[in-house]
Amino acid sequence: MTPDELKAPKGMTKQQQDELKQEAAKQAAAMVQPGSVLGVGTGSTVKFFIDALAAREQSEGLHLKAIVTTSSRSQKQLEGYGFTVSELADIGQADLIVDGADRVDANLDGIKGGGGALTLEKNVAVNCKKNVWIVDESKVVTHLSGFPLPVEVLPISASHLFTKFEAAGLEPAYRTQADGSKYITHYGNYIIDLGVSPLPIPAGLADYLDHTVGVVEHGLFLNLCDEVLIAHSDGTIEDRKR
Amino acid sequence: MTPDELKAPKGMTKQQQDELKQEAAKQAAAMVQPGSVLGVGTGSTVKFFIDALAAREQSEGLHLKAIVTTSSRSQKQLEGYGFTVSELADIGQADLIVDGADRVDANLDGIKGGGGALTLEKNVAVNCKKNVWIVDESKVVTHLSGFPLPVEVLPISASHLFTKFEAAGLEPAYRTQADGSKYITHYGNYIIDLGVSPLPIPAGLADYLDHTVGVVEHGLFLNLCDEVLIAHSDGTIEDRKR
Repeated sequence: MTPDELKAPKGMTKQQQDELKQEAAKQAAAMVQPGSVLGVGTGSTVKFFIDALAAREQSEGLHLKAIVTTSSRSQKQLEGYGFTVSELADIGQADLIVDGADRVDANLDGIKGGGGALTLEKNVAVNCKKNVWIVDESKVVTHLSGFPLPVEVLPISASHLFTKFEAAGLEPAYRTQADGSKYITHYGNYIIDLGVSPLPIPAGLADYLDHTVGVVEHGLFLNLCDEVLIAHSDGTIEDRKR
Repeated sequence: MTPDELKAPKGMTKQQQDELKQEAAKQAAAMVQPGSVLGVGTGSTVKFFIDALAAREQSEGLHLKAIVTTSSRSQKQLEGYGFTVSELADIGQADLIVDGADRVDANLDGIKGGGGALTLEKNVAVNCKKNVWIVDESKVVTHLSGFPLPVEVLPISASHLFTKFEAAGLEPAYRTQADGSKYITHYGNYIIDLGVSPLPIPAGLADYLDHTVGVVEHGLFLNLCDEVLIAHSDGTIEDRKR
């Protein structure tokens, strides 16, 4: 399987949807404090966020202390605008990260990692004082559901874990590439996507996965997101805080 | 720092110590069931275990279904005796693993990973029905202590984790190589050794580390060991079961 992309909410044209994302992105860019350390995620709305950030930089000069990002695509875009991108290992805590999410529930807990970079994304997220997600309303659910939970696993234990997850009713599936071979993460591991939906007690599942030997990281982002900007199909932007 | 080696208990010559290890190794080799799947760890006593295993193979023919090991040194020794070594990913559960440990406490919980292969060791250990450790009495303690706890961490989060562990009073130190550069594990990660001794509530510390983003694995092996053979300096072998 491949990560699903932002789908246009019903009744909207692609252009209307882009305008809505741009508006949400602009609101997120307005949260960036001059002189701060900024984290930048990835995704179609984050792309507009970087545009809005560059516009602020040009008009007022943000003098950001450092920027880190979780994707090479965002890095390329940032560098194209003249921003210098640092490594997470080289910065202290970031003040703010703006990122997307694959699902976000009523508690502002979420599933991330559809793009396969969950480990980097979570390591950056825990090192940011404030996490802001920008999503369209198709990602918003009451209980986490409708999107497989990615679990990054060591190849040596992958087959054992697959069997274990299957026995536990978690509906595992290896993530594969276009040619059918197993998807390999940046860290040389596999991803097993758990298809069970809705996720049974996310905090309990996260605890179980954290304790499972061979699991490097998983896509449950709990108690991490502080604020979500939701682009609704009626053209409004909703701002939800934890 | 480098892993400490088995030290000769007080008043024993190296030869006396080796004889004692050989006796413990022979007892462990006697536990191997013909036709079973066997895990083999690493260490100076495990070396004697492989010798004893080969002797049984030659005299009675063990017809082992498969052997997996956690070190290239043991693999080389096993292959030298004509055994075929498989990958963990290619076998089901192993029936028995015989391994060493850096410390073992009164509950048969232990610290492993002094040699830096804790992640592989733990992945193998959890996939074995029975874990047997062979140690000399210098490794046996009431509470886990006297040996730093290795924690394998992602390089991107290493400096953040070091600061976090320091603030938590865990006395972190990067494991280094002879030239002073950071030790790199088989998986491309760093090891932070936690010097705090005795370890404060091992189960609580393991839980904390399992939940810490950026930690790949740690050297606390809890509820895993079923039986320990202890070579005492008085020449006796003690057999402790969980």
